[in-house]
Amino acid sequence: MRATLMYGAGDVRVEDVPDPKIQNPTDAVVRVVRSCVCGSDLWPYGSMPAAEQGRRMGHEFLGVVEDIGSEVSGLKRGDLVVAPFVWADGTCDFCAEGLHPSCRNGGRYGLDGVDGGQGEAVRVPQAQGTLVKLPVGEDSALLPSLLTLSDVLCTGHHGAVTSRVGPGTSVTVVGDGAVGLSAVLAARRLGAERIILMGRHKDRTDLGREFGATDVIAERGEEAVERVRELTGGDGTHAVVEAVGTEQSMDVALGVVRAGGAISRLGVPQYNEVPLGRDTFMRNITVTGGPAPARAYIEELLPDILDGKIEPGRVFDRTVGLEEVPDGYRAMAAREALKVLIQP
Amino acid sequence: MRATLMYGAGDVRVEDVPDPKIQNPTDAVVRVVRSCVCGSDLWPYGSMPAAEQGRRMGHEFLGVVEDIGSEVSGLKRGDLVVAPFVWADGTCDFCAEGLHPSCRNGGRYGLDGVDGGQGEAVRVPQAQGTLVKLPVGEDSALLPSLLTLSDVLCTGHHGAVTSRVGPGTSVTVVGDGAVGLSAVLAARRLGAERIILMGRHKDRTDLGREFGATDVIAERGEEAVERVRELTGGDGTHAVVEAVGTEQSMDVALGVVRAGGAISRLGVPQYNEVPLGRDTFMRNITVTGGPAPARAYIEELLPDILDGKIEPGRVFDRTVGLEEVPDGYRAMAAREALKVLIQP
Repeated sequence: MRATLMYGAGDVRVEDVPDPKIQNPTDAVVRVVRSCVCGSDLWPYGSMPAAEQGRRMGHEFLGVVEDIGSEVSGLKRGDLVVAPFVWADGTCDFCAEGLHPSCRNGGRYGLDGVDGGQGEAVRVPQAQGTLVKLPVGEDSALLPSLLTLSDVLCTGHHGAVTSRVGPGTSVTVVGDGAVGLSAVLAARRLGAERIILMGRHKDRTDLGREFGATDVIAERGEEAVERVRELTGGDGTHAVVEAVGTEQSMDVALGVVRAGGAISRLGVPQYNEVPLGRDTFMRNITVTGGPAPARAYIEELLPDILDGKIEPGRVFDRTVGLEEVPDGYRAMAAREALKVLIQP
Repeated sequence: MRATLMYGAGDVRVEDVPDPKIQNPTDAVVRVVRSCVCGSDLWPYGSMPAAEQGRRMGHEFLGVVEDIGSEVSGLKRGDLVVAPFVWADGTCDFCAEGLHPSCRNGGRYGLDGVDGGQGEAVRVPQAQGTLVKLPVGEDSALLPSLLTLSDVLCTGHHGAVTSRVGPGTSVTVVGDGAVGLSAVLAARRLGAERIILMGRHKDRTDLGREFGATDVIAERGEEAVERVRELTGGDGTHAVVEAVGTEQSMDVALGVVRAGGAISRLGVPQYNEVPLGRDTFMRNITVTGGPAPARAYIEELLPDILDGKIEPGRVFDRTVGLEEVPDGYRAMAAREALKVLIQP
């Protein structure tokens, strides 16, 4: 089959790879119907050292179960399923606590002989604990929104939940990428009263407004902090969702969080230290977040997509075939595309 | 009246100061019946530059209302009251959220013309929002335990609450000072199943065991982390209460926290940065805590003291008169005393 591999910064190729087959009785093989490129894929796209061996890419996909191991129940061939961005057994103590990314028998796509999502098919380990059946056909217009259950919508929701967004709260979302916009949508859904979106790309922040942002701030750094302070009577917001991952964006997050408030980190940290000295202590600031347990959130979020209450799939603004995935990476890295949908 | 002032590192004096008087209609004047020295007082005791003007000391006290402003209701002369370690109006949005240390009209003892607690009397601003009436006489044997409502018991409780200690959870308490031991007591009270106390002073860790610690670890640094890992099947504990405030103790806290777990900081940070890079992100670690809203917790904790269910006053292992306060500081700094009670 054909699949996407990264060989180094800027070097993405679509190549022939072995067809996936059931290897363990807990596996399923899923033919990919929709996949996409993640903002986190852009970190290695910008910095990966050149390598002889390519890295299999992609961790967001939905598709049709083509084959299934003998120990997988609750799924059958022909089911349309969505795959959370990590696979997990669904039964260990971490999964029971809703922390699937720390599953004792789980792992990531594209590593250790497991396929990536940016290809024609994927062998999914721990299929029973991982895959969620979707009650639509593979020609459904909802597929883009359903695909966001794989990562960005659940990740935005994780940011809103862990930063304690609730009815009447105020939240700042740092970053207007697909995760940031999903966090806006999630915060609105959870009842946030004021949602301040920080971003400089008008097409994105316009979508952010449609998703529920009440204010948009194009400034960066200290000026952005000042603007949030002005908007909030000097206090900052109860919650902050940090959806970038740089030192600068964390500094902004710390600058705009209200006393007693929480910053949820969704962007993979590109820094090693956070300035959490005396000031943040005296203000009872919480820093939380991390990889979202997408699997834990799907049951809650899926009905709102099926009912048309939310349309998170609007973050996809470009669709490519599998052979055009390298150009999809280029377009996202160049900020020409917000998020690229792949239709193999 | 007589009161305690600090003039620099190691330089504590008891001197004559003006008698407190009602200055605002929201004030009360409280004659101090019991006060104490706080672990946080030892930071300036170890490092304060010598000054011409002494700094008024003490923020934990209980006493009798001697005079009262015209706008204070719910209190009367002769009431025995306990004072949380910050004063607060009890009515602003922060107080309503239970975050009294961030009160919009609140402040700290010993600053801006407000007396410290280590003296004969204190003018308490915002008395109605701050002081809590105690249903015992000033000869009650419960006074030491009731005094801990002013700070250490509520601070330990804050650590347990914010690190999400609950029935069946495991917790590591870093530090065997009065706050650490209070955190042990609070964690036990909230149903923690396993309470690992880190400390090297046997008399303190013995009290910690009586307060509910199930394991005591005398090692420090990497060895301490290894010991907790051994005790928890490699996982670490769900919760960590960091009751020291040094870079080293935060490193230990980060080393022993289980994936998905929370570290609550109770020790005033003597560092500026926390190593919260990629590893803590991937493990969904939360860092939280800060000054406890003691006022918010007193209603919950007071009945357990009155009923004799908890005896947090056992952290006091030395009692001094007001004139001996300097020696009390010395004894605490030399680790001869765990916590010094002052009986003016």
